[in-house]
Amino acid sequence: MLSTLAAPRIELLAIPHIPLIQPSDDLPGILLAAAAAAGMDWRDGDVLVVAQKIVSKAEGRLVYLPEVQPSPRSQELAAITGKDPRLVELILGESAEVLRARPGLLVVEHRLGFICANAGIDQSNVAGSDDWALLLPVDPDAAARRLRDAIHARSGARAAVIVSDSHGRAWRFGVVGVAIGVAGLHPLSDLRGQPDLTGRPLQITEVGTADEIAAAAGLLMGQAGQATPAVLVRGAAFRAGEGRLAEILRPKALDLFR
Amino acid sequence: MLSTLAAPRIELLAIPHIPLIQPSDDLPGILLAAAAAAGMDWRDGDVLVVAQKIVSKAEGRLVYLPEVQPSPRSQELAAITGKDPRLVELILGESAEVLRARPGLLVVEHRLGFICANAGIDQSNVAGSDDWALLLPVDPDAAARRLRDAIHARSGARAAVIVSDSHGRAWRFGVVGVAIGVAGLHPLSDLRGQPDLTGRPLQITEVGTADEIAAAAGLLMGQAGQATPAVLVRGAAFRAGEGRLAEILRPKALDLFR
Repeated sequence: MLSTLAAPRIELLAIPHIPLIQPSDDLPGILLAAAAAAGMDWRDGDVLVVAQKIVSKAEGRLVYLPEVQPSPRSQELAAITGKDPRLVELILGESAEVLRARPGLLVVEHRLGFICANAGIDQSNVAGSDDWALLLPVDPDAAARRLRDAIHARSGARAAVIVSDSHGRAWRFGVVGVAIGVAGLHPLSDLRGQPDLTGRPLQITEVGTADEIAAAAGLLMGQAGQATPAVLVRGAAFRAGEGRLAEILRPKALDLFR
Repeated sequence: MLSTLAAPRIELLAIPHIPLIQPSDDLPGILLAAAAAAGMDWRDGDVLVVAQKIVSKAEGRLVYLPEVQPSPRSQELAAITGKDPRLVELILGESAEVLRARPGLLVVEHRLGFICANAGIDQSNVAGSDDWALLLPVDPDAAARRLRDAIHARSGARAAVIVSDSHGRAWRFGVVGVAIGVAGLHPLSDLRGQPDLTGRPLQITEVGTADEIAAAAGLLMGQAGQATPAVLVRGAAFRAGEGRLAEILRPKALDLFR
């Protein structure tokens, strides 16, 4: 197996035994302690992928639905979609624009700029009750920076951090992991101008590296019974720097599919 | 590091030293030989991800553009998009429907059912010349099955195979790896009905596992200078079986974004 060690390789390691996160928990401290307890070290170039759910819980983004008053607009969209009008009220509060409303489906532009279903608001895994909803983190880039800084302070390693969520796609069934916040990396790898294998300039200009890393981590996050909300990715090439999620979002003027 | 070995983990290994593939090459034989030369073994549950480009080349899907006669419709779309009318002719020949035609952009439903730019036709890395274009494999599911069967015949291992391509997204910049053909796995993992961590039924119904695996492999395929067209993925959970790509494609009637 020595020779395979020399070939390019990437490792994805679930950080085990992360406790259920509660509002105002010290998320960086908990994750670093769980990684240390598992014997994991941190190295320059590592990427920590964290599911938005535990970031949101630590931020106390839980909302008690019985206290939500739906507006007439929320009631109208609830009637179209079949969703709880109080949930729709929360969705609209987190959204810049509604793209599609159909039975079972509400696709919006989130206030953070990306397109997703239900503004990323989740009723699964939330306090064991239908009465609670969990909004996305206030500022996922900032949450990623806090984690990145904590890793550096603890270990000295220059790691990157991605806050991930699971998004549906316009033309394919199934959700996949995507980045909704980044720190320490630019979400796009720009290959423009690099020659390809035969020396011609590459036609594909940019690779959605942060989303590919989030999707890879999703392979370890996706199983409900053994869900792991944090994954260490080692060996992935990315463009280091002070990135932000907005770099990967297509501006409305360039969006042909609203 | 022993304890990290016990936590869920996934390894991605680039298969090194794959020669440039030529028409009528024995692709399964070449890939298996390259893996063996690198000391790689095959195990039940492994997934081989192969870039469509080398599958297409082995199938001889190269077309010499000077021999292509563009139709009036192709010339019209070439004028809109600024693309070579002969290339547009090939794109239309591989497409069921044109979704969007704008300067620099032609988004179609491929004859294989998925939505992509330019019908997946590639002029990069093709014979070192602008005069050649490379169409997608004739039947990527069948190509995946041939590779899966070759792995089994050689090693006895029940591996899965994904033929991958890089696709753009409706609302995000950057391409990511996606599956365009599968064998030995269902592209969707169905989590419906499984309880979540707090016992409530999960609301997210399906995970696009094959696309997440293709995206993960894309992290090793995406660098032009050191591109590797085949990646072994070890440790990913998926739904084994006689899958086919069509399982992941949203039928037109359920597509809100054409």
